Amino acid sequence: MFVHHVYFWLKNPESKEDLQQLKAGLEKLSKVAGIRMFHIGRPAATKREVIDSGYSLSWLTIFENAKDQDDYQVDPIHLKFVEECASLWSRVVVYDSIDV
Amino acid sequence: MFVHHVYFWLKNPESKEDLQQLKAGLEKLSKVAGIRMFHIGRPAATKREVIDSGYSLSWLTIFENAKDQDDYQVDPIHLKFVEECASLWSRVVVYDSIDV
Repeated sequence: MFVHHVYFWLKNPESKEDLQQLKAGLEKLSKVAGIRMFHIGRPAATKREVIDSGYSLSWLTIFENAKDQDDYQVDPIHLKFVEECASLWSRVVVYDSIDV
Repeated sequence: MFVHHVYFWLKNPESKEDLQQLKAGLEKLSKVAGIRMFHIGRPAATKREVIDSGYSLSWLTIFENAKDQDDYQVDPIHLKFVEECASLWSRVVVYDSIDV
């Protein structure tokens, strides 16, 4: 299993339009072959010192293996997503995890 | 859906024993009722500027809803995990996400 989790911070975190545009982009992105499961999330209401809830959107995708995730990175749908949406965010943090 | 993703940085990142101890703790933790899906991960080999691969273990859990995650936080199995394993890590970052 390959877990690819991306957190996006919007340039304009107050803009509902920008949030909707990024969400729509992620929905299109979810069509990439090889994605076994995905979740588009926003910060939950939980508050503890260790919780980072400052991001705008969370993009969780699960792949069968590392190769499928490599293929996803260069898929035309992914390249188009970056082209169309990269101007919306100011910061992106990615965590890629494989089975221990 | 409630996505709870925790990243652990070990105090002794070179210690295989500490890693195994934390992994064993997470395996016991996975028995908490309400966890629909979980994944114990280590950093993948992917390298890009936006990727944080400095953590030791990733702990992804998915719950049906926020209440199940709240219950998990106070479950005796979770409290025991924190008691037994908290001395192993130097840093924890948590991201909690709900449906947009």
